[in-house]
Amino acid sequence: MTPTDKLPSRQENFSEWYNQLVLKAELADYAPVRGCMVVRPYGWALWENIQQALDSRFKATGHVNAAFPLLIPMSFLEKEREHVEGFSPELAVVTIGGGEKLEEPLIVRPTSETIIGYMYSKWIKSYRDLPVLINQWGNVVRWEMRTRLFLRTLEFYWQEGHTAHATSDEAMEETLRMLGVYADMAIKEAAIPVVQGVKSDKERFAGAVQSYTIEAMMGDTRALQAGTSHFFGQKFAQAFDIQFLDWNNQMQYAWTTSWGLSTRMVGAIIMTHGDDQGLVLPPNLAPYQVVIVPIYKDEDERHRVMEVVDRLRQELGAYRLKIDDRTEVTPGFKFNDWEMRGVPLRLEIGPKDVEKGSVALARRDLPGRAGKSFVPQAGLAQQVQETLDSIQSSLFERALKFRQANTFEPGDYAELQQVLQDGWAYVWWCQKPECEARIKEDTRATSRCIPLEQPGGKGKCVVCGEAASVKAYFARAY
Amino acid sequence: MTPTDKLPSRQENFSEWYNQLVLKAELADYAPVRGCMVVRPYGWALWENIQQALDSRFKATGHVNAAFPLLIPMSFLEKEREHVEGFSPELAVVTIGGGEKLEEPLIVRPTSETIIGYMYSKWIKSYRDLPVLINQWGNVVRWEMRTRLFLRTLEFYWQEGHTAHATSDEAMEETLRMLGVYADMAIKEAAIPVVQGVKSDKERFAGAVQSYTIEAMMGDTRALQAGTSHFFGQKFAQAFDIQFLDWNNQMQYAWTTSWGLSTRMVGAIIMTHGDDQGLVLPPNLAPYQVVIVPIYKDEDERHRVMEVVDRLRQELGAYRLKIDDRTEVTPGFKFNDWEMRGVPLRLEIGPKDVEKGSVALARRDLPGRAGKSFVPQAGLAQQVQETLDSIQSSLFERALKFRQANTFEPGDYAELQQVLQDGWAYVWWCQKPECEARIKEDTRATSRCIPLEQPGGKGKCVVCGEAASVKAYFARAY
Repeated sequence: MTPTDKLPSRQENFSEWYNQLVLKAELADYAPVRGCMVVRPYGWALWENIQQALDSRFKATGHVNAAFPLLIPMSFLEKEREHVEGFSPELAVVTIGGGEKLEEPLIVRPTSETIIGYMYSKWIKSYRDLPVLINQWGNVVRWEMRTRLFLRTLEFYWQEGHTAHATSDEAMEETLRMLGVYADMAIKEAAIPVVQGVKSDKERFAGAVQSYTIEAMMGDTRALQAGTSHFFGQKFAQAFDIQFLDWNNQMQYAWTTSWGLSTRMVGAIIMTHGDDQGLVLPPNLAPYQVVIVPIYKDEDERHRVMEVVDRLRQELGAYRLKIDDRTEVTPGFKFNDWEMRGVPLRLEIGPKDVEKGSVALARRDLPGRAGKSFVPQAGLAQQVQETLDSIQSSLFERALKFRQANTFEPGDYAELQQVLQDGWAYVWWCQKPECEARIKEDTRATSRCIPLEQPGGKGKCVVCGEAASVKAYFARAY
Repeated sequence: MTPTDKLPSRQENFSEWYNQLVLKAELADYAPVRGCMVVRPYGWALWENIQQALDSRFKATGHVNAAFPLLIPMSFLEKEREHVEGFSPELAVVTIGGGEKLEEPLIVRPTSETIIGYMYSKWIKSYRDLPVLINQWGNVVRWEMRTRLFLRTLEFYWQEGHTAHATSDEAMEETLRMLGVYADMAIKEAAIPVVQGVKSDKERFAGAVQSYTIEAMMGDTRALQAGTSHFFGQKFAQAFDIQFLDWNNQMQYAWTTSWGLSTRMVGAIIMTHGDDQGLVLPPNLAPYQVVIVPIYKDEDERHRVMEVVDRLRQELGAYRLKIDDRTEVTPGFKFNDWEMRGVPLRLEIGPKDVEKGSVALARRDLPGRAGKSFVPQAGLAQQVQETLDSIQSSLFERALKFRQANTFEPGDYAELQQVLQDGWAYVWWCQKPECEARIKEDTRATSRCIPLEQPGGKGKCVVCGEAASVKAYFARAY
């Protein structure tokens, strides 16, 4: 940890800023295997808070957790044509087990629709067994060629929900419910304004009938797909023979969904809120919400200061609190260090504060003087709560304004190409793959989603000029 | 779920009783890959409660969580001679990634000492970086030939703590501290009396200097190793070059430990407390602590009964509570069902109870009339708390008495062979591998541990008659 080495500015080199920040804030590190990462304790604590925010929402909507195997027979993947086409280039394959060559190679799961579909076909017999609402927390492996810590790694951590229903309507309702759960978590906990929408045919998950997404704008205006929810119709049920006896004693194929959100969300938080000094974490998810830095010159001062610090530690027991009592580094070093790590609120207490009964408060979201204030020690817990609430909501507002300021509604194709250099375009689109492909070829931007919320009415496709009934977001994406 | 199919009795066939119970109680199921398991929601909820009981203890003792990669270069394993010898027969090997043959094969981690050692050598520079106290929750793969659900599966779930220290004393203290944490969890939460002890040279973890264990007696008197804690001295630090600059500016190798507890603990709970009716779960870990079964014959009765049930649901909000309001099965079916699943306490409420203001209480640990009582609805929450506490402690007492009744102190080798047919032997042992090997050959029993608590004094080895300074447990084991 060398917080005195400055980061490159975001303006200068966003990508390098990101890479260095992840390392310097000790969120993650490179593993010895190409493309793999080690999630360090500070990064994992952030992910644990995301997990908890999601898991409580999953349970509140009737879901239970379970664990399915890591290793899947290669033949399973081949049962759904689009699924195998989508995933087979990305597989890690186990060919040797216990010193012997395996008769059938096993794949390390890239996602678990196939193995879970197989088990569901064993478990589901009657409409009384439905719905099945299971989630799994785990790791998956996809052999990606271009990797970035948290954003795209060979192995990543996620949750994958897999549900089976008696009717199409119920399955579609579930698909959208879980998209809503993701949006709710992103907005309320991660302070990231996200757009909920449906993916184009081209961007759809391999094997899905419809894929839904939450899309977020990063600090360099690029888009990031932060969570997805898929409606499979009866495709996987047919591939894996998930049948049930319905109310009329007829055999029916079940309707299935899956939905996933991964450690990518950590990358989204970094790139949404971070600044040139480092991480800026939303209080609801920050591993430490408050850090206290005691300031003293000698043993006598130290004694007086730490007495107050110990009292405040108790008063602030409801918060995730860190007391930085390191003796081998200066307070200035500590300030930089905790700014790099994005702790939302810093309290500084020196001998003068002890005398005056005050504390210096420094908000991470407003660097320098703007975020600094002196408040009485009396009633500090309430002041801390109000400040954290204020940070949480202003991070969201700032991100929302940033997205709005960088989202454009170009009038023609030339203008579209222009705005896609550095922003999102919100445009009428005929939904034809040719128009989507042309945009990609000319600008490297992809269709991000057709938002669920539509303006209504009709327009003309920004590419071909033909009739269009939806508006969509296009952007360059991670 | 067919709770009316009876289990074989434990007496009759303990092994079949176990296998069928795991399936019927829907704790786990067989996966399509040989030796792998699916942990079903009910089993996973039990494991989540174990996780929480451990994780809070880890954090209270200063540990943090992180995540290290699943895939490890084959060459890493070869850096520690005993470690590679111990694990190489059990490896799953990835030889193909992204459609191409890999230059260096990757192993799916069987345990993570090597990859974590590699990272620690990057992170640890000075004594100020020590101790490093990291735990990881995850999955590992060991290519076992003879598998049993929860007890021994190709893939299993566990936590593995890995720590590095500046001195041997500190590392040994950590090793024993975490053994104590395991024992505390087993005793207080799982209600399993365990013996803390050190493993013999033969039974030691591959690469460890000393391995410590908590050993439990199962319902068939066989022993089960339920958690282990290892002291590595400087062996892994030397193999992975984990060096730090000490207080005197000298480079030193760090002292490391690791400790793990797995989903095996679920098997231990089943086999310690289960009876011929099914599972019996300790209230502190049970997914549902209380189940309410409403009893009624018609809509009018149903209405009156459910009114009370709804009120009790609120009064018992502090408990993990299940209301079984299924209409397609009888109350009798439900009783059997929840007995099979081991819910500690069942409340039955029928129209007569509504009239009398009473509730029927059925303790799972005392089947039949012995566990049944009628109590007033008023003050039910306190009654429930007292009953759960009583169940928790009597499960422990019962298991402790069972162990004591089946632990013997044979006077000579002939008697030793006899008692090991159906129990544990607690005997003086000279600690020579020859004596251990002879016992194993003659009885299939292994040395389980040399308990930390020793009677003191000296004795004669039960095998060779030579001087012995410790007493040890020998038993057949899972």
